[in-house]
Amino acid sequence: MVSLMFFGSSSYLCSSPSKNTKASLDFERKKVGPCTKLVRNVNLEKLKNNYLFPEITRRELEHVEKHPNVRLISLGTGDTTEPIPEQITSQMSNFAHALSTVEGYRGYGLEQGDKTLRQAIANTFYGNLCVKSSEVFVSDGAQSDISRLQLLLGSGVTIAVQDPTFPAYVDSSVIMGQTGRFHEATKTYQNVVYMPCGPQNSFFPDLAMTPRTDVIFFCSPNNPTGYVASRKQLHQLVEFAKTNGSIIIFDSAYAAFIEDGSPRSIYEIPGAREVAIEVSSFSKFAGFTGVRLGWTIIPDELLYSNGFPILNDFHRIVTTSFNGASNIAQAGGLACLSSAGLKEIRSVINYYKENRKILMETLVSLGLTVYGGVNAPYLWVHFRGSKSWDVFAEVLENTHIITVPGSGFGPGGEEYLRISGFGRRDDIIEASKRLQRFFNKRTKHFIFLSSASNNN
Amino acid sequence: MVSLMFFGSSSYLCSSPSKNTKASLDFERKKVGPCTKLVRNVNLEKLKNNYLFPEITRRELEHVEKHPNVRLISLGTGDTTEPIPEQITSQMSNFAHALSTVEGYRGYGLEQGDKTLRQAIANTFYGNLCVKSSEVFVSDGAQSDISRLQLLLGSGVTIAVQDPTFPAYVDSSVIMGQTGRFHEATKTYQNVVYMPCGPQNSFFPDLAMTPRTDVIFFCSPNNPTGYVASRKQLHQLVEFAKTNGSIIIFDSAYAAFIEDGSPRSIYEIPGAREVAIEVSSFSKFAGFTGVRLGWTIIPDELLYSNGFPILNDFHRIVTTSFNGASNIAQAGGLACLSSAGLKEIRSVINYYKENRKILMETLVSLGLTVYGGVNAPYLWVHFRGSKSWDVFAEVLENTHIITVPGSGFGPGGEEYLRISGFGRRDDIIEASKRLQRFFNKRTKHFIFLSSASNNN
Repeated sequence: MVSLMFFGSSSYLCSSPSKNTKASLDFERKKVGPCTKLVRNVNLEKLKNNYLFPEITRRELEHVEKHPNVRLISLGTGDTTEPIPEQITSQMSNFAHALSTVEGYRGYGLEQGDKTLRQAIANTFYGNLCVKSSEVFVSDGAQSDISRLQLLLGSGVTIAVQDPTFPAYVDSSVIMGQTGRFHEATKTYQNVVYMPCGPQNSFFPDLAMTPRTDVIFFCSPNNPTGYVASRKQLHQLVEFAKTNGSIIIFDSAYAAFIEDGSPRSIYEIPGAREVAIEVSSFSKFAGFTGVRLGWTIIPDELLYSNGFPILNDFHRIVTTSFNGASNIAQAGGLACLSSAGLKEIRSVINYYKENRKILMETLVSLGLTVYGGVNAPYLWVHFRGSKSWDVFAEVLENTHIITVPGSGFGPGGEEYLRISGFGRRDDIIEASKRLQRFFNKRTKHFIFLSSASNNN
Repeated sequence: MVSLMFFGSSSYLCSSPSKNTKASLDFERKKVGPCTKLVRNVNLEKLKNNYLFPEITRRELEHVEKHPNVRLISLGTGDTTEPIPEQITSQMSNFAHALSTVEGYRGYGLEQGDKTLRQAIANTFYGNLCVKSSEVFVSDGAQSDISRLQLLLGSGVTIAVQDPTFPAYVDSSVIMGQTGRFHEATKTYQNVVYMPCGPQNSFFPDLAMTPRTDVIFFCSPNNPTGYVASRKQLHQLVEFAKTNGSIIIFDSAYAAFIEDGSPRSIYEIPGAREVAIEVSSFSKFAGFTGVRLGWTIIPDELLYSNGFPILNDFHRIVTTSFNGASNIAQAGGLACLSSAGLKEIRSVINYYKENRKILMETLVSLGLTVYGGVNAPYLWVHFRGSKSWDVFAEVLENTHIITVPGSGFGPGGEEYLRISGFGRRDDIIEASKRLQRFFNKRTKHFIFLSSASNNN
């Protein structure tokens, strides 16, 4: 047995041979054990349901079990599907291989990230925006960054979020103890300010009606609506934050998909350095969803009410709760930001943009109301009067396509479905055909019911 | 400019051309900005000093600046130095390269980790101990795991730690709000139970004198003392936890260094599945300090006081605050756990063990009091009556060797220095020579002073 070979013969045997039989061990494991006296964290009790995306995965697996022979197509989780350009993978491959040499071996890196990579991030994404490498914190991705930012903020802050938005902001806030209980009727957590973003307000919050909070999470281009805030709107947001002494946590993970010249970083807005943290990621930009790499910017000028720099505390959090992103992933990140790397990445992003275009044309031709899909890889489809999990289930049952129900992103998403443009081209084309067949039939069915009703 | 090439010409220019000059931008950045109204997290205000290891790094850099021509030797941070066996790096290299192919590309993985890797971890380290792959949570290393466990626990729990011990347990507890203020006189945080571990009690806490806490952090083999708890002692610990309804967070990161048959996992102790979480790491075991990979075990039987399984909540934390360890690192982990991989890893561990032996022999021959250094890669050297930062500084100034002052691990470490056996052999040999020269001279100096004093 491998463990015996490595560790010696006695280390891994249960201490009493009579307990070693499979039957007795199974019994030991199955019996209902005594409880500890550890009281469950009340914040975890408040969490409503599973986190959204593992729930989608669960339903996907359930469906595949029920229909083992169908070709399930996922336009759901927003997972990248295109290979990473070889320009980039070869650098990671070489770096990994060099770890077996004296010259190439690397142990612990700086928790804040490799300095060259930090400088490359500052140059590439913030070239004229005065971001220093010391303000860049390399991470293993936005999800971890948001969690570490919540550790920084603590339980005593109030937050505002777009409604709908990426669910990790609210869920991490609940875990941190910033919120009250979940209110079933409104599908909201107490103490969180939800800023509706929908067709009624061009998907930008009415800030005049928004109460002050300490922190405003703002994702642009937005996941899931696909809307990107204009320069004018972001000016308003920055002014709103300044007036209220709030900080903005600006998620720019989808900036690479912007087509219309809208700002790609909050720091394009004057004054933002004094009110905003920016979080971003190599996931959707470079296909690093599995490789894991991202970054957060904390400007020097961002200060607590007592004048202490927030950057200092985030550095403390990062050095205590984290030990740096994988050095191989960081080598890949650096390769992404070379001229050749960026050129290759642009091709992949264009591929996803074309996917999104195909889906958009399909859905619009079917008479569906579709938002987003221009400056982001997501289409936000409106099914007026519906429950989004019902539409999700109906689409899944009838077309074997996974989408994401809008209510998973907040109460404002209830009548919507998010459809992702990430996918293999042939899947996108096949999905379009299935959606056409299904929605055409569905429309005829509704027309039939409508006629039948008129004839009675 | 690369950013312009990628993103277009206008996206990254400051909005007002007159603010674009370097001088005006420098001015903008240097001026003391207005504060936000965000109140600093009181928990971060409680933190005393920098986290230990970045502080060591800072002093190292300071020393190198002061003495640019010396060969600084680090026996400090515990960073691995030996190349990772090619058996393993080639797997990572191949996996990374395959990400540029349709067949080999992988996006998001399960947040809990690749199933095959989880099974391999369960088989290799817990083969006869009934750990299921569903109880294994793959991570980017123990430091992140401890932080996520603290998110799980919340602010309302009490903790006990060995004194001295790895500082992340206490620091993460402060950040989470579990502790009171730092007490300068005792160098302890209020509300934390410190369990002294020293020569007076064979480096195992006197549990009869230890108050109940919800959580007991226990590291064995211990960082920094190098002591490994015996089977009998761990029985006592498990019984203590059972009696008190506490949970043990058992850190087995150094298990691979055990020589004397002491338990390598808490689950070797009957009943541990009902009271213990185990955290471990590929860092010191496989040289993955930069690659980043670790794991946590949460047994099914581990229940809160209300009977709810702790595993379920940890799964929720992991899926919300994390997106999985890098898939390339996980491929490396799997290669580590093959028969061939384990064999290679054993050679590297033996290399560090030999280092430790050389250092041990040197220090003992100098008449120094040395603990540990048998079942762990650390030597715990006692300088009775001294302040550990003073000894650290004296050793650094006179031998250009970085160590770690014991007080960084808790008040019980005050008279000690931690010396690490991780290093290149030639550095270890050179360090031994320098230590011999220095301590011989230091002893003669004390003898001279003693004689001079007697003659007066």
